[in-house]
Amino acid sequence: MSYRVPVEDIRFALKQLADLDGVLALPGFEEFSPDLIDAVLEENARFVEQEIAPLNQSGDTQPPQWKDGHVTASPGFKAAFEAFAAGGWQGLQHDPELGGQGLPKLIGAVTSENINAASLAFSLCPLLTDGVIEALTLVGSDEQKERYLPALMEGRWTGTMNLTEPQAGSDLAQVKARAVPQDDGSYRVYGQKIFITYGEHDMAENIVHLVLARTPDAPAGVKGISLFIVPKFLAKQDGSLGERNDVWCASLEHKLGIHASPTAVLLFGADKGEVGEGAIGYLVGQENRGLEYMFIMMNAARYAVGIQGIAVAERALQQATAYAHDRVQGAALDSDSRAAVSIAHHPDVQRMLLQMRGLTEGARALAYYAASAADKARHHPDEQQRKHYKTLYEFLVPVIKGFGTEMSQEVTYLGMQVHGGMGFIEETGAAQHYRDARILTIYEGTTAIQANDFIGRKILRDGGQQAQALGALVQETVEQLITQAKAGGKHARALELIAQRLEAGIEAVKLSATFTLTQAQHAFSPVFLGSVPFLLLTGNVLSGWQLARAALVAAVALEQGDDEFLQRKLATAVFYASHILPRADALALAVADGELLAPYTTAENVK
Amino acid sequence: MSYRVPVEDIRFALKQLADLDGVLALPGFEEFSPDLIDAVLEENARFVEQEIAPLNQSGDTQPPQWKDGHVTASPGFKAAFEAFAAGGWQGLQHDPELGGQGLPKLIGAVTSENINAASLAFSLCPLLTDGVIEALTLVGSDEQKERYLPALMEGRWTGTMNLTEPQAGSDLAQVKARAVPQDDGSYRVYGQKIFITYGEHDMAENIVHLVLARTPDAPAGVKGISLFIVPKFLAKQDGSLGERNDVWCASLEHKLGIHASPTAVLLFGADKGEVGEGAIGYLVGQENRGLEYMFIMMNAARYAVGIQGIAVAERALQQATAYAHDRVQGAALDSDSRAAVSIAHHPDVQRMLLQMRGLTEGARALAYYAASAADKARHHPDEQQRKHYKTLYEFLVPVIKGFGTEMSQEVTYLGMQVHGGMGFIEETGAAQHYRDARILTIYEGTTAIQANDFIGRKILRDGGQQAQALGALVQETVEQLITQAKAGGKHARALELIAQRLEAGIEAVKLSATFTLTQAQHAFSPVFLGSVPFLLLTGNVLSGWQLARAALVAAVALEQGDDEFLQRKLATAVFYASHILPRADALALAVADGELLAPYTTAENVK
Repeated sequence: MSYRVPVEDIRFALKQLADLDGVLALPGFEEFSPDLIDAVLEENARFVEQEIAPLNQSGDTQPPQWKDGHVTASPGFKAAFEAFAAGGWQGLQHDPELGGQGLPKLIGAVTSENINAASLAFSLCPLLTDGVIEALTLVGSDEQKERYLPALMEGRWTGTMNLTEPQAGSDLAQVKARAVPQDDGSYRVYGQKIFITYGEHDMAENIVHLVLARTPDAPAGVKGISLFIVPKFLAKQDGSLGERNDVWCASLEHKLGIHASPTAVLLFGADKGEVGEGAIGYLVGQENRGLEYMFIMMNAARYAVGIQGIAVAERALQQATAYAHDRVQGAALDSDSRAAVSIAHHPDVQRMLLQMRGLTEGARALAYYAASAADKARHHPDEQQRKHYKTLYEFLVPVIKGFGTEMSQEVTYLGMQVHGGMGFIEETGAAQHYRDARILTIYEGTTAIQANDFIGRKILRDGGQQAQALGALVQETVEQLITQAKAGGKHARALELIAQRLEAGIEAVKLSATFTLTQAQHAFSPVFLGSVPFLLLTGNVLSGWQLARAALVAAVALEQGDDEFLQRKLATAVFYASHILPRADALALAVADGELLAPYTTAENVK
Repeated sequence: MSYRVPVEDIRFALKQLADLDGVLALPGFEEFSPDLIDAVLEENARFVEQEIAPLNQSGDTQPPQWKDGHVTASPGFKAAFEAFAAGGWQGLQHDPELGGQGLPKLIGAVTSENINAASLAFSLCPLLTDGVIEALTLVGSDEQKERYLPALMEGRWTGTMNLTEPQAGSDLAQVKARAVPQDDGSYRVYGQKIFITYGEHDMAENIVHLVLARTPDAPAGVKGISLFIVPKFLAKQDGSLGERNDVWCASLEHKLGIHASPTAVLLFGADKGEVGEGAIGYLVGQENRGLEYMFIMMNAARYAVGIQGIAVAERALQQATAYAHDRVQGAALDSDSRAAVSIAHHPDVQRMLLQMRGLTEGARALAYYAASAADKARHHPDEQQRKHYKTLYEFLVPVIKGFGTEMSQEVTYLGMQVHGGMGFIEETGAAQHYRDARILTIYEGTTAIQANDFIGRKILRDGGQQAQALGALVQETVEQLITQAKAGGKHARALELIAQRLEAGIEAVKLSATFTLTQAQHAFSPVFLGSVPFLLLTGNVLSGWQLARAALVAAVALEQGDDEFLQRKLATAVFYASHILPRADALALAVADGELLAPYTTAENVK
């Protein structure tokens, strides 16, 4: 089926939950009127629905083809990327002084969600390019910015991130690629990189590879890694293309999902004779600070992958919803009629659809909330506020990546389940979302890596302060829910339930944080045994918080009169509070058991 | 990697948890000495490891080929099935008076797990054949038994179940296939059946289709469905093959997983000219009781699909475990050394492996426990006891199917996650287990259908008596754990934790049962909104119970001296109690919220 951007849901989340008005009032965004934003969102919806969404299934069955080092993209992908470039979408949220359009990240989050929902595999190309733009914007030299950013923002060139090597995955200390300085200030880069998304393709005239490698005298470990620009074709001063560089695509991977996205093995300095003697590279920033710079890209990319989770979940939800209302099977419960009805009338199908919707909408609202914070972190006139929002945003990035992608597994799973036997048949399309989603908890740092970041940098480093500050905000929502419930009204019981479960969620976070902070003073293993559970329960509670905020808005309005849209918001929130929020308690128990468990969870005991 | 039957784990579960000795002491099993059983299990392990397991990956990439109605099995499958037949495996647990070997179902559960772990796709052929044998044994006429059972048990012929039609999936009331009586007592069958596993292939000389169809004057709905034998080739009195029947394979499905298993669209009475005028069929049992008979097959098949979940989970666990001990990445936590270690040393990898192991071993022990009950239901000398065990077994079937298959999704998911990026590459093989497992919660009745059976027939019908009886047994284990913990010893805290979480699990079941029994007096929708959560939390608690029993055995023995195997059993149990059992509480809250939720979970609110 075709994909429709959920415009009404998105607008609700932007305006009611993510303070769009506040963001548009920030210095630097004066020119973006609400009308203009609406026009951008409408055009984006039209573009992804008409030009990208139809490619999703065909790209799955017709993956890119490798031949003699050249890669031909899936049919239609080159034209679609040209249309994407022509529409100005690549530069949307980037610095206007460097060729971007400078829209808020909050709007970028929406357009990114939409295009990813249309096709995850297609969208990886702009996603990685965004990361390269972000890194060069922040740490590239003026000359590098001039040489590369316009072409990247215009979509004439695309970008990649080259971290992984066969022996160096999550552990980048083991990176072996070498970069040898040359007399002219450039470097020659040698080595093999794997799992390079859009590492080779014919959708744009050039590819800018950002590559982690070691200079000859670099120290061992992560403190000896530097970052290099290695363009596929050397870029001349005037922006035109020079010689073909010595970087080659040796093969493409055969993957479970995102088939249309070429995942390349790249050889640097394979000396194929055209240039040879190593790939020419240019140092970005200072030597040995490559990992730090790469984290700039990674943070942007991690947030973006969280958005991918929401996107594929939304697509799976739409498809399952349509099927459930179409498929007639079985009589309705609690009805005198024995006539078969659409399966959307059966309680368990309703459960599955509400579970899908709750997870998707909760994670979306949380991601928008974070994007809003990122905009305030950059644009707020008050420095204290900028700092405040920066900390908030950074706290949320691993949560959004971790929870947003893990929940997408559940949502795409349920999307298949709603289809019954038809879901297992590839032509139906539900299975593709399930396959495509599966990479999301792995790339740009597995969920465990997000959890390491969360525990190490977001909980332990500030002694749990940011977590506590967020907890106080959630508690405020609890109080508002209780006040509203006490006022009576049609939905008092529902609001009460949401308040109760949300409060239990806060307790779950507190329990986990207390254990983590205390235990980390003695040993880390018991803490990191619960790192993923802690991360996921935090995402669960914060997403539930966003839905609770939505429920408050809806419940107040519904006292004035019926509204189908708001009724659905309330239903989604109360269902989430009942079926999903209590998982937080279960996970917190597991976190807090860490010390008792640690002697039992050993390498010997998992043989 | 190759698959190894987990012989030591299986023996432990058989002897310590599933009362193998008690089963072997039953009348009818006198000839099966422990030594003979050991020999059977050893030969089975050798057979599946050497002859079936190597076909799993090749079958995935080389699915059966359809041409002009003929289906050629994946390379090697025909020879493997001949070896399977020659080994006498098909008749293993069937009636010796009808050509089977009459081994306990408990042993059949083990051999079924092993062969399914070796290849789910291969094993579906014997699995369905088992169902046909079971149905004909119980409701076939003497003449039908003589004509079909020997060939089926010898593996010369295979069997299928034909229920689904395009408009009739979970809702069999909508079956339209027709059966027209003929003067000679046979019928002519017309209609289209879909999703027919091994509906056509060249691995055996004949296929016995069991088909649901309506006779001309049959009442509407499920009470007008009859069961027919429709052989691919008509069977002569002497067992030799007669004419080709008018049943044809129109196409095979293109599926997410179990690629090597041909899923056929079958046309009955398509009149291809060879026989024409309808497929010749023979009524099984009485007219209009087809659904009841089909449930005999379905119950056997549902149990077997639960075993499939355990099997694919075990295979994924083995592969992930091997990878985790092989892959070197990152330094150990809480260590002075910065040298990279195998990822099996990292807490989150240990968490994933123990989560996989706990789910797999818990479900395995529960399935064996049920098989043991099935053997006692058939062979116990005391009628009251037979009745008691029959009720117990039937209570457990939907739990084993529902929980055993749902947990296999989590286990195969984690199996990929342990592999990181390599997991997403098809050649690694971890993704195949994930894809293959995905059908298990769908076929032979989705998890929702299992939950309907569980709530309707296993909880409401007897007013929760069987659930209560099981609860009392679990409570006994809790008391034993507490007693053992109070005695002190090295593992007192671990046993205490298990007792505490298991007791909370019992409370979760009680809360769910009380809500269900009370609420069902008023309306069903609020109950069935929580039917799947209730089913899954029951499976979770009962699996945790089995692991707790294992922990008791291990803890007592470990006081006498170290033992790596028993140490692992204890570790698995305490981990499960911490990380998995508490989910039961969360699910019970959701179940008990049904009444509050029902007004919000409507077809309109899931649009």
